[in-house]
Amino acid sequence: MNTDIQLDAHGQLRHLLTTEGLPKSLLERILDTAESLVPEVGAPPKKVPLLRGKTVFNLFFENSTRTRTTFELAAKRLSADVINMDVATSSRAKGEDDLDTLFTLQAMGADIFVVRHPENGAAAHFAAHAAPHVAIINAGDGSHAHPTQGLLDVFTIRRHRPDFENLKIAIVGDVAHSRVAHSTIHALRTLGTTDIRVIGPERFLPPAPGALGVTATTDIRAGLADADIVMGLRIQRERIEGDALAGVADYHHDFGLTPANLAHASKTALIMHPGPINRGVEITAEVAYSDQSLILEQVRNGIGIRMAVMAMIAGQTRGGSPDAP
Amino acid sequence: MNTDIQLDAHGQLRHLLTTEGLPKSLLERILDTAESLVPEVGAPPKKVPLLRGKTVFNLFFENSTRTRTTFELAAKRLSADVINMDVATSSRAKGEDDLDTLFTLQAMGADIFVVRHPENGAAAHFAAHAAPHVAIINAGDGSHAHPTQGLLDVFTIRRHRPDFENLKIAIVGDVAHSRVAHSTIHALRTLGTTDIRVIGPERFLPPAPGALGVTATTDIRAGLADADIVMGLRIQRERIEGDALAGVADYHHDFGLTPANLAHASKTALIMHPGPINRGVEITAEVAYSDQSLILEQVRNGIGIRMAVMAMIAGQTRGGSPDAP
Amino acid sequence: MNTDIQLDAHGQLRHLLTTEGLPKSLLERILDTAESLVPEVGAPPKKVPLLRGKTVFNLFFENSTRTRTTFELAAKRLSADVINMDVATSSRAKGEDDLDTLFTLQAMGADIFVVRHPENGAAAHFAAHAAPHVAIINAGDGSHAHPTQGLLDVFTIRRHRPDFENLKIAIVGDVAHSRVAHSTIHALRTLGTTDIRVIGPERFLPPAPGALGVTATTDIRAGLADADIVMGLRIQRERIEGDALAGVADYHHDFGLTPANLAHASKTALIMHPGPINRGVEITAEVAYSDQSLILEQVRNGIGIRMAVMAMIAGQTRGGSPDAP
Repeated sequence: MNTDIQLDAHGQLRHLLTTEGLPKSLLERILDTAESLVPEVGAPPKKVPLLRGKTVFNLFFENSTRTRTTFELAAKRLSADVINMDVATSSRAKGEDDLDTLFTLQAMGADIFVVRHPENGAAAHFAAHAAPHVAIINAGDGSHAHPTQGLLDVFTIRRHRPDFENLKIAIVGDVAHSRVAHSTIHALRTLGTTDIRVIGPERFLPPAPGALGVTATTDIRAGLADADIVMGLRIQRERIEGDALAGVADYHHDFGLTPANLAHASKTALIMHPGPINRGVEITAEVAYSDQSLILEQVRNGIGIRMAVMAMIAGQTRGGSPDAP
Repeated sequence: MNTDIQLDAHGQLRHLLTTEGLPKSLLERILDTAESLVPEVGAPPKKVPLLRGKTVFNLFFENSTRTRTTFELAAKRLSADVINMDVATSSRAKGEDDLDTLFTLQAMGADIFVVRHPENGAAAHFAAHAAPHVAIINAGDGSHAHPTQGLLDVFTIRRHRPDFENLKIAIVGDVAHSRVAHSTIHALRTLGTTDIRVIGPERFLPPAPGALGVTATTDIRAGLADADIVMGLRIQRERIEGDALAGVADYHHDFGLTPANLAHASKTALIMHPGPINRGVEITAEVAYSDQSLILEQVRNGIGIRMAVMAMIAGQTRGGSPDAP
Repeated sequence: MNTDIQLDAHGQLRHLLTTEGLPKSLLERILDTAESLVPEVGAPPKKVPLLRGKTVFNLFFENSTRTRTTFELAAKRLSADVINMDVATSSRAKGEDDLDTLFTLQAMGADIFVVRHPENGAAAHFAAHAAPHVAIINAGDGSHAHPTQGLLDVFTIRRHRPDFENLKIAIVGDVAHSRVAHSTIHALRTLGTTDIRVIGPERFLPPAPGALGVTATTDIRAGLADADIVMGLRIQRERIEGDALAGVADYHHDFGLTPANLAHASKTALIMHPGPINRGVEITAEVAYSDQSLILEQVRNGIGIRMAVMAMIAGQTRGGSPDAP
């Protein structure tokens, strides 16, 4: 799929489809913009009316109240008008084609579509057909990409371990099917990280780790050795075959972020997880809410990242609504 | 049903229930008001705070994300507070009577109810019982009326073919069950159009075409002859009996807006459709997105028409919320 | 469960979990604040931007469009950003623990959570774990409490029968399972009412009426004798066993608020009901919309009470969003 279209002719952010291939300078500009939008711990969230008069559609072809909420909050804190559309339960049920939906909604005067879709490449497909003044933000397409999650991950890491080139990071879970892991890995590599290990049972490992720029192992001891950051992934039972797990207990023992397993990582290792966590499956509550956990900070930073992306994109559009598809 | 109540004692718009019987001067005033609210192609949507402090309830007893969205956007662009209520899945399931819902919600301080309901006359029923300062806008009641759609259709036609008295218009589809067709036909006749042909299989034709002010035919060649405007209707499979269609392919061949069928219309005929389209059923994508298609312009104009109706109605109410039913 | 935590160290409202034990002075302050926020009959609703920049989450683990709407309207009229989350159909289905949901959402920058939950004590559980600057408002937890409903009931009574100490009130219905009745009874007793009768079939009567501060009877004649206020409760068919009612007709005859039964109350008795009513079950439409009915006034007052509670709570928080659970 063609994701070059996420930049305009001047190299500015036009759509956000993937972190793969996003130039380092642009990626860092997103992180810097987010720095100004994330509140201090304990401080109220920032309200910045950069999107006043703009209309943001949360166009979800796949249900996710939590992700939808992060974009809805980010847009409202930028003073946009926000429309939530759960397409699975509405016109789609009547057979309306996805592009017809896009054309129709942009004729209503949309500026930004936040799109979640079960198929890889759906966001790029929308972007390829969107009107000149309409932008697409990928909020997760199949197992391909979830770029705002990848950006908030590296944003969170940068606040605590800014030396990306000497960072050792371990990602534990179903990396093969994880759009989160893919987006985080691409962003880390752009920032210079070379020591990225992915850990999980054989069937969860990416088919071509080298091409992805990671090393893969089924041995959590080896994988976690000296790791500065340990990131667990949510087990998406619905994304894998029925018998893919020998059992939750086995997975928890072998690959869970438990005190026992984490003993193999650096003593100062920081813990991350995209949420929502499955307590007792890929992580324990004790670990998730420990002093070394960044999980809730990831959530907080995620609002700022989404505000930054929307604000930067809106700066490149003029908010119009031409009809022509 | 009594729809005279849509005008107040001074002939101003009090509710919007149907285009049938709406005086020509008032209908034209709605279109003129909408002209000031529809943006130029490519320009950002207009925001006009005429409903600041007002509360609009989208009260949908029948699911339609798309129609609900058009009213939600229109209300937000007028700075109203908007509450979406899908009654089918909430209190209605508990057996709450429709009027109890109306009385309860107007006690909360509603100004305008946008009502969609599966039964003919439901909006008029609400209007007959609404408090003095509460207005009802019919967003579709059974097969009776969908007046904002009718208004946006004539608004769109006026921008391209303003000579209504010499207009030849063909409407193809299930006119008998179409609230859209009824509302559009009534509006066209008020504006002076006399040559309105409705085309479809026998069971889709209105039982008394003459009373409706149209001619009816099952022959698309005859029906389209020299037509200036060809309007397709969405096939509502759920509104017709299971065996009503010999088959989608037959319907598409005999009555679809295809290049072959459209060869019988005027070479400069403009194409309309209320959306969402069923590609390959009542229309082809090629026709829907051709240069002669007004379909996406209809969508864009629909926001302006809904803003105009809300703004004109709000000028006749004082936004109060008396309790008495 | 520990509900003392609803007050802060200075005795100010920190959360609202129950009316039980709420000090009389604080309860009266809520009613006084609401007086300034409820519009006159026929006047437009009041907009007061006391919550500008604050974020209110309607976190509903149990479906109730009507109750959610009252809080959504109240928050919007205070200029808050409002996010609706129906947890039953989203992350909960994926097994996310309730506290994880709380921690995640407060990391997004929530100020107030309006929580409805099927389990007794759920709101107190959230409050016990909420961050220092986050407040919980109980919108109904199991059969335990629904404090804003109790407050709006006594607010409505105070406007018409302010002499609480000499008030005779009869509550008819399933008091044993009614969170509404519990919250109203506690508020009435705090205000000095001693003559509270609860009326219903044996299985609907509270197990320990004395402890609750009421008298219980299965005889509606005796229960209604000389009552100043008669409050009916909605029959929650889903809250009781399948065979709990001999039948709707029998219940209506024996315990319905009908003209026949109400002949036993004071001729000037006022009628109340938390809504939505079941016409022909616990009340007749004739009674519900009679001159002596306060039912729609309760709805109107409910918005003002919810605005008052949110405004008073927001005065005690600083709107921050620390991550630590």
